Amino acid sequence: MRDVTKDNITEVFMGYVGNDVNPRLREVIGSLVKHLHAFAKDISLTHAEWEQGIDFLERVGDISDSERHEFVLLSDVLGLSSLVDMLHNTPDGTSSSVLGPFHIQGAPALEIGGDMKQDFNGTVMLVEGVVKDTEGNLIEGATVDIWQTAPNGLYSSQDPDQNTYSFHGLQTTGFDGRYSFTSAKPVEYPVPTDGPVGEILNGLGRHPMRPSHLHYIVKADGYKSLVTEIFAEGDTYLDQDTVFGVREDLVMTYKDMPADSFPDGYALSGKVDQAYVRVDFDLVLVKS
Amino acid sequence: MRDVTKDNITEVFMGYVGNDVNPRLREVIGSLVKHLHAFAKDISLTHAEWEQGIDFLERVGDISDSERHEFVLLSDVLGLSSLVDMLHNTPDGTSSSVLGPFHIQGAPALEIGGDMKQDFNGTVMLVEGVVKDTEGNLIEGATVDIWQTAPNGLYSSQDPDQNTYSFHGLQTTGFDGRYSFTSAKPVEYPVPTDGPVGEILNGLGRHPMRPSHLHYIVKADGYKSLVTEIFAEGDTYLDQDTVFGVREDLVMTYKDMPADSFPDGYALSGKVDQAYVRVDFDLVLVKS
Repeated sequence: MRDVTKDNITEVFMGYVGNDVNPRLREVIGSLVKHLHAFAKDISLTHAEWEQGIDFLERVGDISDSERHEFVLLSDVLGLSSLVDMLHNTPDGTSSSVLGPFHIQGAPALEIGGDMKQDFNGTVMLVEGVVKDTEGNLIEGATVDIWQTAPNGLYSSQDPDQNTYSFHGLQTTGFDGRYSFTSAKPVEYPVPTDGPVGEILNGLGRHPMRPSHLHYIVKADGYKSLVTEIFAEGDTYLDQDTVFGVREDLVMTYKDMPADSFPDGYALSGKVDQAYVRVDFDLVLVKS
Repeated sequence: MRDVTKDNITEVFMGYVGNDVNPRLREVIGSLVKHLHAFAKDISLTHAEWEQGIDFLERVGDISDSERHEFVLLSDVLGLSSLVDMLHNTPDGTSSSVLGPFHIQGAPALEIGGDMKQDFNGTVMLVEGVVKDTEGNLIEGATVDIWQTAPNGLYSSQDPDQNTYSFHGLQTTGFDGRYSFTSAKPVEYPVPTDGPVGEILNGLGRHPMRPSHLHYIVKADGYKSLVTEIFAEGDTYLDQDTVFGVREDLVMTYKDMPADSFPDGYALSGKVDQAYVRVDFDLVLVKS
């Protein structure tokens, strides 16, 4: 078009798209451009603001590498990552929640009742539950990939004092569908704020904190994989997770337990001489 | 919120924004997030597509440096850059158009009637016009910063065979408001397609071409600065500029002129022994 105007540019854009293109690509880019143009018009975006935006994206690119995924963090704090999760949630199963950037492949096998706390400080946490389907049938042979921060609020990949697989474990359910382990009670922690995304949080008067949580990826043959997190009732940041990960059904309770009540059948049985917390949480998978 | 859903997440996001923040930042980010969420919902963006998007942005970041501005190119081919231009256009003056990434500071002074073609091949082009205000008053002392590609379709910064300021010149109008110079007739050229933005053009079945054009930045005391381009009637890509820069009033005509008609008062007067083209184009500034 030789007469592109602010009123026809979105149509002109679509007119440039060829006929023989992937229909989904046309749909995705078409919607993206429609909303991008509407955004610029709605707020009458100025050239100076556009330049700030370009500079911001270039700086997000500059700080990113194979370890640091600042674009993922940007998506997380804008709520996009959680929205994408929720758009494809399966209503009868346990809700999904954000994967986050700290999952690592190859977690070591963790026997039923095994321990991830090892020599770290922190309160002992005992976690137990079953993996079942939406009709309550227990699922044998499901894998539960578990990861969390150490008591200092850092994941192993962020912390030179931890081994690669500290606070990472892969458990497989037996005939009774049960998973169970001990670990250190997780803590609240901030997302990284030393990059451009920190400027957005700061500019909007937002804190960078996530409520404490345990990460799970649950897989079983014949079922949809579940990527989720569970959160603790009473956590300071439960109602204001900076990455919007909390769902009502993912909130569990720490039960305060006296030291002498620690059960048998755990790697730590007979070794716990302090009060500990207990978490009961079942995981419900949906048939694929 | 402990019960974030796909229906309330946009409100939850706004609820996180502090009270004592820059109102324009709140408005811009609020609108961005509203449209970002609506985009994801409208097309039911999948996790795999989200991952492709993150990977795309990371690769745009990887190829960017102080010379290559792939995020600007992305904005250009999606029509955002042109839309931002048009949102702040002043209707009575000459239309603005995209700055592009090839303007450089410090262009050498170009006397009235001076030449930018020098020893390059290509057809001689004579350009003449006045800088005036919206009431037709001629503007003395206006600066016209001019740049264009060489006849090989490359700007000086892209081409090791050109000097830094080849095809860049800064002219100042005299009492008659007139600007005039000779150069080589510009050519059509493709935007860079060897980066991630090239994948979008290719995926959408779009060519990467821009119609041939001359760039101007026109400044004068008491007037709004004008960043624009002028395009040639009959150019193959006039109706399909891949960065949406063409406006009806920015289209000029190459008049084919016989060699013996070359006028006096130019650096090339008496030296042109071939047919040449003539462009008459006036530039209209709006009071600031």
